Amino acid sequence: MDDSSPPGTPSYPTSLGTSDAETISLLGHDLATELMGNVGFGELAMWLVTQQRPTPGQVRLFEAVLVALADHGFTPTAIAARLTYLSAPDSLQGALAAGLLGGGSRFLGVTEDCGRYLARVLEEHRADLPEDPDDEAGWDVPALAAVRQARKSRSIVPGLGHPVHKERDPRTARLMDIAAEEDLKGPHLRLFEAIGRVHPAVLGRRLPLNGAGVCGAALADLGLPGELLRGFALLARTAGLLGQLAEETRRPVASDIYLSVDRNAFSVPPETA
Amino acid sequence: MDDSSPPGTPSYPTSLGTSDAETISLLGHDLATELMGNVGFGELAMWLVTQQRPTPGQVRLFEAVLVALADHGFTPTAIAARLTYLSAPDSLQGALAAGLLGGGSRFLGVTEDCGRYLARVLEEHRADLPEDPDDEAGWDVPALAAVRQARKSRSIVPGLGHPVHKERDPRTARLMDIAAEEDLKGPHLRLFEAIGRVHPAVLGRRLPLNGAGVCGAALADLGLPGELLRGFALLARTAGLLGQLAEETRRPVASDIYLSVDRNAFSVPPETA
Amino acid sequence: MDDSSPPGTPSYPTSLGTSDAETISLLGHDLATELMGNVGFGELAMWLVTQQRPTPGQVRLFEAVLVALADHGFTPTAIAARLTYLSAPDSLQGALAAGLLGGGSRFLGVTEDCGRYLARVLEEHRADLPEDPDDEAGWDVPALAAVRQARKSRSIVPGLGHPVHKERDPRTARLMDIAAEEDLKGPHLRLFEAIGRVHPAVLGRRLPLNGAGVCGAALADLGLPGELLRGFALLARTAGLLGQLAEETRRPVASDIYLSVDRNAFSVPPETA
Amino acid sequence: MDDSSPPGTPSYPTSLGTSDAETISLLGHDLATELMGNVGFGELAMWLVTQQRPTPGQVRLFEAVLVALADHGFTPTAIAARLTYLSAPDSLQGALAAGLLGGGSRFLGVTEDCGRYLARVLEEHRADLPEDPDDEAGWDVPALAAVRQARKSRSIVPGLGHPVHKERDPRTARLMDIAAEEDLKGPHLRLFEAIGRVHPAVLGRRLPLNGAGVCGAALADLGLPGELLRGFALLARTAGLLGQLAEETRRPVASDIYLSVDRNAFSVPPETA
Repeated sequence: MDDSSPPGTPSYPTSLGTSDAETISLLGHDLATELMGNVGFGELAMWLVTQQRPTPGQVRLFEAVLVALADHGFTPTAIAARLTYLSAPDSLQGALAAGLLGGGSRFLGVTEDCGRYLARVLEEHRADLPEDPDDEAGWDVPALAAVRQARKSRSIVPGLGHPVHKERDPRTARLMDIAAEEDLKGPHLRLFEAIGRVHPAVLGRRLPLNGAGVCGAALADLGLPGELLRGFALLARTAGLLGQLAEETRRPVASDIYLSVDRNAFSVPPETA
Repeated sequence: MDDSSPPGTPSYPTSLGTSDAETISLLGHDLATELMGNVGFGELAMWLVTQQRPTPGQVRLFEAVLVALADHGFTPTAIAARLTYLSAPDSLQGALAAGLLGGGSRFLGVTEDCGRYLARVLEEHRADLPEDPDDEAGWDVPALAAVRQARKSRSIVPGLGHPVHKERDPRTARLMDIAAEEDLKGPHLRLFEAIGRVHPAVLGRRLPLNGAGVCGAALADLGLPGELLRGFALLARTAGLLGQLAEETRRPVASDIYLSVDRNAFSVPPETA
Repeated sequence: MDDSSPPGTPSYPTSLGTSDAETISLLGHDLATELMGNVGFGELAMWLVTQQRPTPGQVRLFEAVLVALADHGFTPTAIAARLTYLSAPDSLQGALAAGLLGGGSRFLGVTEDCGRYLARVLEEHRADLPEDPDDEAGWDVPALAAVRQARKSRSIVPGLGHPVHKERDPRTARLMDIAAEEDLKGPHLRLFEAIGRVHPAVLGRRLPLNGAGVCGAALADLGLPGELLRGFALLARTAGLLGQLAEETRRPVASDIYLSVDRNAFSVPPETA
Repeated sequence: MDDSSPPGTPSYPTSLGTSDAETISLLGHDLATELMGNVGFGELAMWLVTQQRPTPGQVRLFEAVLVALADHGFTPTAIAARLTYLSAPDSLQGALAAGLLGGGSRFLGVTEDCGRYLARVLEEHRADLPEDPDDEAGWDVPALAAVRQARKSRSIVPGLGHPVHKERDPRTARLMDIAAEEDLKGPHLRLFEAIGRVHPAVLGRRLPLNGAGVCGAALADLGLPGELLRGFALLARTAGLLGQLAEETRRPVASDIYLSVDRNAFSVPPETA
C-alpha cells in the first residue's frame, strides 16, 4: 500500500502477486528466482488456491485429474468455442470464454457436485466412519445410508452412471490406483468406492462410477475447497479448448457444423408457451 | 463416425478426444492407461496444441512461461473476476470467463504481439540471419533494422518497456537462462535479446525487455502457433484467477472495491460526444 | 430444410428468423416490409420470447420495466465491464459479456427470484385467490401465509428490502401505476402489493417493496416465462452497459479504479483455508 | 461523492445512474416520474450512449435497425448460445454472453466496419462532397474514388455482397425509405447508396448493398460513435438470443445438434502444424 494513501481509504490484502520496481513476488516467493523453472504449472495452480505448496504426490494426483478432464472431444462446450472462433476470430479470449461458460451444472458440474456430495455425506456420518481406512465394510455403512437416502428422495447420486461408458469408466480405476500409489486415497475416494460396491443392492442395477465423479472425489481428498471444485474442471478444460481451437485453425469444422444446422432448419408457425 | 450416418452427412475429423463404451482416447493414446499419471498438465496442454509430445526441456521452459504469467496481483482482469463473483457467486465459470475477457490487446496481449512481431522480423530478414546462433553481432543486424523501422513509423516495439519495472524485469533474464539451460534458445529469443542490446542507440534511452515479451519469444521458439500465443497467457491466467477467487472466498475485497467506487461517484451533467 | 438432405439427418424447427435469396422472415412476418419501421424494439423483444405480438399497453409496461432496470450507476457489473474494456478495448463484445456475467443470483437475480416466488405462491394458493381482483383483503390471505412461511423457514421474501431505498423504492409505486393505467395489474403484482401491506405485522418492521422485485412481478403478469425473467434484466442492462462504455470512452475512470485498488493493495502472508 | 472521503481519493464522474435514499436519477432525470412509462427502451438505449434525447424520427430509424439485426435464425452465435444453455441451464447470463461473444469481426462486425469505413471516406473527401444532399452525381464522385481505391488495394468494400441475398438484400431499400421518411438520410447513407450505383463499373459485377452495412450507415448518420456501432448490433442480438433461448426451452434442438456432431466425428492421426 502506497504510503501516500489518505487515512480511511480501503486497503486490499493479498497473498498472491505483488511487485515493485525490482522484484515480483507470488505467494511470498520471488517469482523469477524461486518459482520460474522450479515449480510446475499444475503445482502452482494448486498452490495458488490452497496457499500451501503441494507435495510431489499431490501434484501427480492433481495433474492426473486435470489430464482426465482436459478434453472429451466434440462436447457442447468445444462446439460453442469453435463456433465463436468462427464468428469472431479476432478474439481468442472470447472463444475460450464461450467454451468455459458451458461449464455449468450439466456437463462439467458433476466433478463439483460429486465432491460436495461426498463431503456432505462424510459430515453427516462423521461419528460412524471406520477407524481403519482400509476397512471396506466400515465405508459401506455410510455409503449404503447415502444411496438409500437418495433413492428415497428420488434424487440422483452424483458420479454414478455414464451415457457412453455404461459398464465401466476407464478413468475411475486408474485414478484410484494413482491415489493409492501416492498414499492419497482419503475418505472421499473411499466413500465413492463404497458407493460403487453397495448401490446395486439398493438401486437394482449396477452403474459405473464415472470419471467426472472420481475426479471430484480426488480433488476433495486433496483438500481443495468444495465451492471451487468446478474451477479445476474449467482449468483443465481451458487446455482442452486451446487444443480444439488449434485444431480448428488447421482443420476447420465450425463452418460445416453451422451450415449443417442452417441447411436443416425449417420454419414452423409461431406458438405460444 | 456412426456407420448408420446417411451419405452426404458432413463428418468432423479430430485428433483430440474420442471415446467408445470401453475406452477413451486422446491424441491417439489411451487416456487412462497411457496419459493419466504419466503426463503432466503443462505437457498435455502443449501436446494438445502442437499435436507432438514435447520433450522434458520444452515442458520446463513452457511451464516457466505459464508460471511467469499466472498472476500479477490486482490487475483489471483479477478485479473484474472478483466483482463478477460478488454479483453472481452461483456461477464460477462466469467469474472466470469475465476475467479472461480482459485478456485482449492491452493487458495480456503483449505476449502474443511480441511473439508475432519477432516472427515477422525473422521472416523479413530470413536471408541475413547469422549462421552461428551464438553470433551476437549477427543478431544485432536484423534487430537494428527492426528498431529503426519502428522508430521511423513511430510504432512501438512489442516487449520493450514496463510501467513498474523501469530498469529491468526480473523475469526476462531468468527465462533466457532457463531456455539456455534446456538448449532451447532459438531465433526469437536471440533476436529479442539483440533488440535489448541495440535499441538504446536508436531510441536514445535504455528500456527493459519485459516479461510478457520474453514469454512470447519463448513460446514462439517452442514452435507454438503465433495466432494462439495469447491463448497460453489465458491458460496461465486461468490458474491465477482461480487463486484470486479462492482468496476472495477467504478474505473478500470485491465488496469494498465496489463500495469505494460507488461512494466516490459524483454526478455530472450529460454531455454529448 | 434443404431438399437434398439425406434421410435420417436431424432437422431443426424454428419460428424465428429464416431467409431465402429474396426474403427474410421473422416470426412468420416479412422482416423488411412488415416489421422494420412498424415494430418497436421492446415490442419485438417481447414478441420473440412469447411468440405473440404484444398489445401497446403490454409494450408500455414492458418497456417501463426495461427502463427501470437499464442502469444503476457504478454497480459491480458496470465496473467489471469498464475494466474489461480497459484491458481489451479491441473487443467490445467481451466487455459487454463480462458485464452481463455479473447478472447472477445477487445483483440482477432479484427480478427473476421475485417473479418465480410470486408464481409459486399463487400456484400453492390457487384455490383461495380472490374472485374480484380489487379485493385487497382477499389478496392479503395468501400474502400473509407466504410471509409467515418465509419467517418460519428463515428464508427471505424476494423483492422485500433495499440497501439504499430503506423507506420506499420510487420505482415500485410508479410501475404499479403504469400497470393499472394499462389495465395489466395481474395476480403477481396484486400479491406483491399485498405482501407490502401484510409483512410488517409478521416481521415486526416495514420494508420497502423494491424495484427489482416489482419488475419481476410485472414481467410475470405480462406472461413471460419464469425461467427467462433474468434475461429481461440482462437485456435492459445491455443498454445500460453500452451507456457505461460510451461514457468510458469520453470520460474514462477504469484506469483510476484499477490504480486505486493496486495502490492500496498490501501483501499478507499466505494462509491456508 | 461522500463528504467523508479523504482528500486525494479518486472520484468518479458519471452522467448515468445515481441514487440516494429517496430518488433515482438517470441522465439527469428522475427515473420513476420522468422516464418510466414515458420513454421507450430503444429511445433510452440511444440516449444512454449519446447523452442527448433522440427525436421520435431518430428513435424510429434506430429501432428499425435493431429490428433488422435482432435475429437471423441459426447463426453460429445462436447455436453457441443454445449449446451453452444445454450445458449450463442454471446460468442464463452465461448462455447470452456466449452468444454475444460471437459478435466479432466476421458475423456481426459488418455493421461497425461499414459505418466506420463510410466515415473514413467522408473524412478523406470532406472537401469535395456535394452541397446539395440530393445531388446523386455529386455523391458518386467520392464513392467511385473509394471503390477504385479498394480494388487497387485488393481490400473489400464493407457492406457490399451477401452469401444468400445475392441479388438484393430486402432490408437495404426498406431502411433507406425509413430514413428518407424521417428526413434522416445523411451523408453515410447517401455515400453507401452511391457505392451501390458506381461499383459495377469498377468491379465488373453488381453486388447487393447488404443489410448489416446499411444498418451501420444509418447508425453513423444518427450520430452514434463509430467505435461503439458493434454494440448496437449486440444489443439487437441480445433480444434475438433471448428469443432463441425461449424457443430452446419450448422446442429444444441443442442436444440434437450436439449429438449430430458427436456421431459424425471420426478420429484422424495427430499431425503437426
